[in-house]
Amino acid sequence: MAKIAVLGYGTVGSGVVEVIKTNSAVVSKKAGEPLEVKYVLDLREFPGDPVQDILTHDFNDILGDDEVSVVVEVMGGTKPAYEFVKKSLEKGKSVCTSNKALVAAHGSELLRIAKENGVNFLFEASVGGGIPIIRPLNRSITSDNIQEITGILNGTTNYMLTKMADEGLEYDDVLKDAQARGYAERDPSADVEGWDTCRKIAILASIATGKEVSFEDIPTEGITKISKRDMDYVKKMGMSIKLFATAKLDGDKVWARVAPAVVGKEHPLSFVSDVFNGILVKGDMLGDVMFYGAGAGKLPTASAVVSDIVDAVRNKNVNLGLSWSEDKQKLSDINTMQVSKLVRLAYNDKAKALFAVKTGFGDCDIIELDNVKGEFAFVTPVYTEGSLNKKLVELENTDGVGEIINTVRMG
Amino acid sequence: MAKIAVLGYGTVGSGVVEVIKTNSAVVSKKAGEPLEVKYVLDLREFPGDPVQDILTHDFNDILGDDEVSVVVEVMGGTKPAYEFVKKSLEKGKSVCTSNKALVAAHGSELLRIAKENGVNFLFEASVGGGIPIIRPLNRSITSDNIQEITGILNGTTNYMLTKMADEGLEYDDVLKDAQARGYAERDPSADVEGWDTCRKIAILASIATGKEVSFEDIPTEGITKISKRDMDYVKKMGMSIKLFATAKLDGDKVWARVAPAVVGKEHPLSFVSDVFNGILVKGDMLGDVMFYGAGAGKLPTASAVVSDIVDAVRNKNVNLGLSWSEDKQKLSDINTMQVSKLVRLAYNDKAKALFAVKTGFGDCDIIELDNVKGEFAFVTPVYTEGSLNKKLVELENTDGVGEIINTVRMG
Repeated sequence: MAKIAVLGYGTVGSGVVEVIKTNSAVVSKKAGEPLEVKYVLDLREFPGDPVQDILTHDFNDILGDDEVSVVVEVMGGTKPAYEFVKKSLEKGKSVCTSNKALVAAHGSELLRIAKENGVNFLFEASVGGGIPIIRPLNRSITSDNIQEITGILNGTTNYMLTKMADEGLEYDDVLKDAQARGYAERDPSADVEGWDTCRKIAILASIATGKEVSFEDIPTEGITKISKRDMDYVKKMGMSIKLFATAKLDGDKVWARVAPAVVGKEHPLSFVSDVFNGILVKGDMLGDVMFYGAGAGKLPTASAVVSDIVDAVRNKNVNLGLSWSEDKQKLSDINTMQVSKLVRLAYNDKAKALFAVKTGFGDCDIIELDNVKGEFAFVTPVYTEGSLNKKLVELENTDGVGEIINTVRMG
Repeated sequence: MAKIAVLGYGTVGSGVVEVIKTNSAVVSKKAGEPLEVKYVLDLREFPGDPVQDILTHDFNDILGDDEVSVVVEVMGGTKPAYEFVKKSLEKGKSVCTSNKALVAAHGSELLRIAKENGVNFLFEASVGGGIPIIRPLNRSITSDNIQEITGILNGTTNYMLTKMADEGLEYDDVLKDAQARGYAERDPSADVEGWDTCRKIAILASIATGKEVSFEDIPTEGITKISKRDMDYVKKMGMSIKLFATAKLDGDKVWARVAPAVVGKEHPLSFVSDVFNGILVKGDMLGDVMFYGAGAGKLPTASAVVSDIVDAVRNKNVNLGLSWSEDKQKLSDINTMQVSKLVRLAYNDKAKALFAVKTGFGDCDIIELDNVKGEFAFVTPVYTEGSLNKKLVELENTDGVGEIINTVRMG
């Protein structure tokens, strides 16, 4: 009987307790022994909930109980999660977490401490919710140099972009809808500014490179600038906009970025809509493989956490060797990355503006909307980000051209 | 230094040697030690190829060499693969194979022998080529009851169906094209009759249920009856036809089948086209997750084999506990499975035929093609397979109705 402690009885924490109870047969079979949730730590009381019997408000109850071999951290944030996780590992307890903020900020150190103590620090649920991605990267794709990872890693923004496209709504309206459904927080910044996505791609890139990719260094752009009008152009092109997180090998460096991207139907991630997530991994031998599923939600996320618990129990006192070094992975200057953009251009004189586009960029696809005057959109050829931005400034200063209303990268 | 022997220097075998050589840095890092291919077994000679120096024609050279800890079986077929694999395991060597025929026919026994000898029998490449699916099923999706697995598991037939749809070609023409490209054999039966797919779903279903699913018991229908005209109806519906393999939990039994299916754009497998494979797994906690990638090809398949070698080397003398029992998994009568079908109906009297459809099946979607007279298609409601088939016989015997030209299940 393996004894488990769950830190935090919120959505994921109560899901973990539920999965272990509901699926006890399959879970004990896979783990090699039954699991028992011995403690749940939460500051609140839950009168009437059976969890009340195993509830504690004091982390030291858990830390001091040598029977507890696995600690599940599903509180979120880094305070006090970081301290609790570190102390648990140091006490020889494995830790399973869904907390991407913790992993992105302290993963290297916590992986090292786990190794030093012969236990495991596992975080399958921190990226892609229920989608198996961390374990496949660590243990399945082991004969490839991973050349690129591109993912749709945030369900809230993907839901919002899907709804904008399907229903022709403005950004503010879909945000209100997402908040009403509980997909977006009252302060939606972590999702819509791309910060959540940024932490997740930092974790995946750290695994792929074996070095620490700092999320703070990844250029991150959210979806707040995407308007209904942008979406209209993209729909006319038969394409869609996704919030892409990308990490791409550049010699011994890595280009990494989070930004909206215009995606055609032939892209394997184009069908990933609503709250779903998808992750495309490119190996030098394997080619493209893609993983898809529910990127959030109580039970899918809890399922991934419990699969980590199973792994921890099966490998008691055996460190699984999953780690990345504490050396920093160097990132490439994003201005050197190859990119093509969809550009919305306001004009004062259409003929002159078209001529300016042709002069600057050659023959481009020009997209015009019915009943929309004074602007068109075009797709640039591929340049480095830096030189493309320079050319766009030149374009904006050309006679007959008004201003660049918005640009979105082509995915 | 782990010493490897490769049985068979065909497409996959030469790919395995190439991956180990090209990616030696990443492979040795993940395996914890360098790998050396000490033997390649093949009946042929390869003058001028460096493999000639390590070539043997005698399996006993490998079996008798205690330095060889991992045997890679990539010969295909069961004779002599079965004997070689069995002997290797009994000698305490782990075996990695891409051979679905071997795994489907002898998996239960070989897994048991591996366990008895404290080594591993691994077969990631036997299903889905380079796609990580066997290991995720065994080690990631460990807290769910797997309720359903549906896959596009054969690249050749998926290529053919895609080409029929995209280019409006007849079956015979795309078969010739697939043969010319080397995707289909001169005798294409194993692919086009669904036998290859059948073995693969038997393997996945055995893992999911933990019991032996016999491929011989799975009702299997290939793509040979799909015509350009069928495809025209399906295209008019905005849908596509895929060769689906399905295993679905039915209490303690399993429905399993291989058959073409009409798939709408909202289905996560609908975008899987050309030679790609996709596998959808439904867990009771996880919901749907999907895995996608190259289902065949030299390097992707070899990459999956080498990931098994890495696993075998990392876990020398530790059986990973992957197995299904030798008990037979009971299959449900396929006639009790819920199904809806697209039916192509020839009529003698259109009004009478439409009335007969309405009388028998209620209001159905009726699909007609421009310039095609004497037939239409309709989509039935959902019935059990058995009762639907009975209703179709009744329909065929109704006044004004000609014959049922073809039926394809809705996916």
